[in-house]
Amino acid sequence: MSKYWSKAIRNIKPYTPGEQPKDMKYIKLNTNENPYPPSPKAMEAIAKAAGEAGENLRLYPDPTCEELRCAIADYYKLEKQQVFVGNGSDELLAFSFLAFFDSDSPVLFPDITYSFYRVYASLFRTDYREVPLNDDFSIPVEAFFETNGGIIIPNPNAPTGKFLPLRDIESILERNENSVVIIDEAYVDFGGESAVALIEKYPNLLIIQTFSKSRSLAGLRIGMALGNNDLIEGLDRVKNSINSYTLDRIALAAAVQAIKDEKHFEETIRKIINTRERVSKELVQIGFKVIDSRANFIFISHETMHARDIFKRLRDRGILVRYFNEARIDNYLRVSIGTDEEMDSFLKAIREIVI
Amino acid sequence: MSKYWSKAIRNIKPYTPGEQPKDMKYIKLNTNENPYPPSPKAMEAIAKAAGEAGENLRLYPDPTCEELRCAIADYYKLEKQQVFVGNGSDELLAFSFLAFFDSDSPVLFPDITYSFYRVYASLFRTDYREVPLNDDFSIPVEAFFETNGGIIIPNPNAPTGKFLPLRDIESILERNENSVVIIDEAYVDFGGESAVALIEKYPNLLIIQTFSKSRSLAGLRIGMALGNNDLIEGLDRVKNSINSYTLDRIALAAAVQAIKDEKHFEETIRKIINTRERVSKELVQIGFKVIDSRANFIFISHETMHARDIFKRLRDRGILVRYFNEARIDNYLRVSIGTDEEMDSFLKAIREIVI
Repeated sequence: MSKYWSKAIRNIKPYTPGEQPKDMKYIKLNTNENPYPPSPKAMEAIAKAAGEAGENLRLYPDPTCEELRCAIADYYKLEKQQVFVGNGSDELLAFSFLAFFDSDSPVLFPDITYSFYRVYASLFRTDYREVPLNDDFSIPVEAFFETNGGIIIPNPNAPTGKFLPLRDIESILERNENSVVIIDEAYVDFGGESAVALIEKYPNLLIIQTFSKSRSLAGLRIGMALGNNDLIEGLDRVKNSINSYTLDRIALAAAVQAIKDEKHFEETIRKIINTRERVSKELVQIGFKVIDSRANFIFISHETMHARDIFKRLRDRGILVRYFNEARIDNYLRVSIGTDEEMDSFLKAIREIVI
Repeated sequence: MSKYWSKAIRNIKPYTPGEQPKDMKYIKLNTNENPYPPSPKAMEAIAKAAGEAGENLRLYPDPTCEELRCAIADYYKLEKQQVFVGNGSDELLAFSFLAFFDSDSPVLFPDITYSFYRVYASLFRTDYREVPLNDDFSIPVEAFFETNGGIIIPNPNAPTGKFLPLRDIESILERNENSVVIIDEAYVDFGGESAVALIEKYPNLLIIQTFSKSRSLAGLRIGMALGNNDLIEGLDRVKNSINSYTLDRIALAAAVQAIKDEKHFEETIRKIINTRERVSKELVQIGFKVIDSRANFIFISHETMHARDIFKRLRDRGILVRYFNEARIDNYLRVSIGTDEEMDSFLKAIREIVI
């Protein structure tokens, strides 16, 4: 503790990303990265964006991110004024706390969810309340009808992978016309359904998505927010009060091509979903409970062996998965879906461990 | 104004970056970009960082930015624990407000300075007081001995370009042992002297620099903060409460090579300083007051023609410079130093305009 630290950071418990050990080569199934490379068109765009001798890199990027916002608007049939982009969906979530959440009523989010939400609330001293999920990890929809100063629900939820039907999202939107309701769709492309069609009807809906999962660009840090003009302008005010240029020239250029290349996107998604379904079935056969997932990861628990033990033994075999030492989920593992070869290695190791 | 906006963003006046018009090709002397390309080694690193088919881009970057922090530590003879990196120096300044400035006393900065400081203060509701510069735009050192909750001084200052000698910085550090003193050295490489040698002696000193100016990487968004371990850990707590990965794989790789390539760096700097001195002399000859600059821009005022008129006429001729419609400096223009060819075009236009 330093005497120079602000009160806000003295007692905060920052978010811990999945480990990235460098001691040996691991099969990385712990950070929900995409096992397949991004669109080859994104790669061509990168070379072009820098210029032959890097001469474009000396210039600031477009602070309005016009081209990327238009490409996303085209893809989702929105206006560009309904689209905002930033340095990963994490930055967009942080900006949203600053832009929309300062009511006297608490912000609501599930108790089992992306653990960054409570970190934002703590940093920005936002009052919040965690809504306990049902025992089967489903979202208790009515609990989000209570008085609040904002709502965040990831759909599919993380780390469970469970998907909430759009009719439930819609009833939450209807009952909260004075609150901003953020649907964090980081994983929606892997079999869920985006709430984007509800934007026209609900001015309180903000959707946040990322290029890190379904578009294989985690290494470039690109996120997007979709919602009515008012909300987008709110985010813009925050951005222009923190950092005029949050996305660099390379990321902007790659993202434009990544969103345009629908064929590559759909092929990649299909492969990951197929692998997920196959692995889930095999895990059930060897005694695992597998929560029904619409994400690029699965959340699993074994009938006899504790998750912590499986985690350690997988790690010893060079396979990283994610274990959360937290109430209600401390006997589960979150396993990202890798290539078929990686998942075969995972299954082989799992069979050795649990049998 | 939207009912969904937080109180913090309702009345804020966000920062406006220099204009980037797309209607025609301009000679851009308005955003202090470097006229020369970055190190060719940075370009090689970019191609390598993505991987041949972009296969590395699907993976998150190193959240600790280890390699870049080590390269900067080597360059400045610091420990890596004394180095922090982020998405441009703007992000680092914003993080610093969150990390260090929440005292009941006001944060102090000059009245004529980088106008983003007051935007941060407004967004984070930090109390602040602007210290009036002397009439010759020099910093009134004693005014920073008054009770405060933190200090920010850019050195050289912007938009004046004036440099404050290190002995004055040191007396401010000595008199403020309970406040964090930020020296914003965005432009220090163009003939100033960094306060980095004072870090060992003053635990309250935080230096912020950028790769956007002297290292020609504005398009990639890279900034660095240098200071004692406590301050760096404070910034790290903020970062890990907002966005685990603020720098992407490409930016990290390019920055490492840019800091290592001292030869390219020094050649570029020398060219810009030579051009600045030549242009300054010629401007004096045609009736301009030119503030003594240690930056990659000059701050100028003509004896008879008003800055606003010169600004407009330059713009009509396809030359963009920066005009600030603000008290005390509304008869000045800030002109970035371009290539010799660009500056010859600028001088030619200026001669047509003022004579």
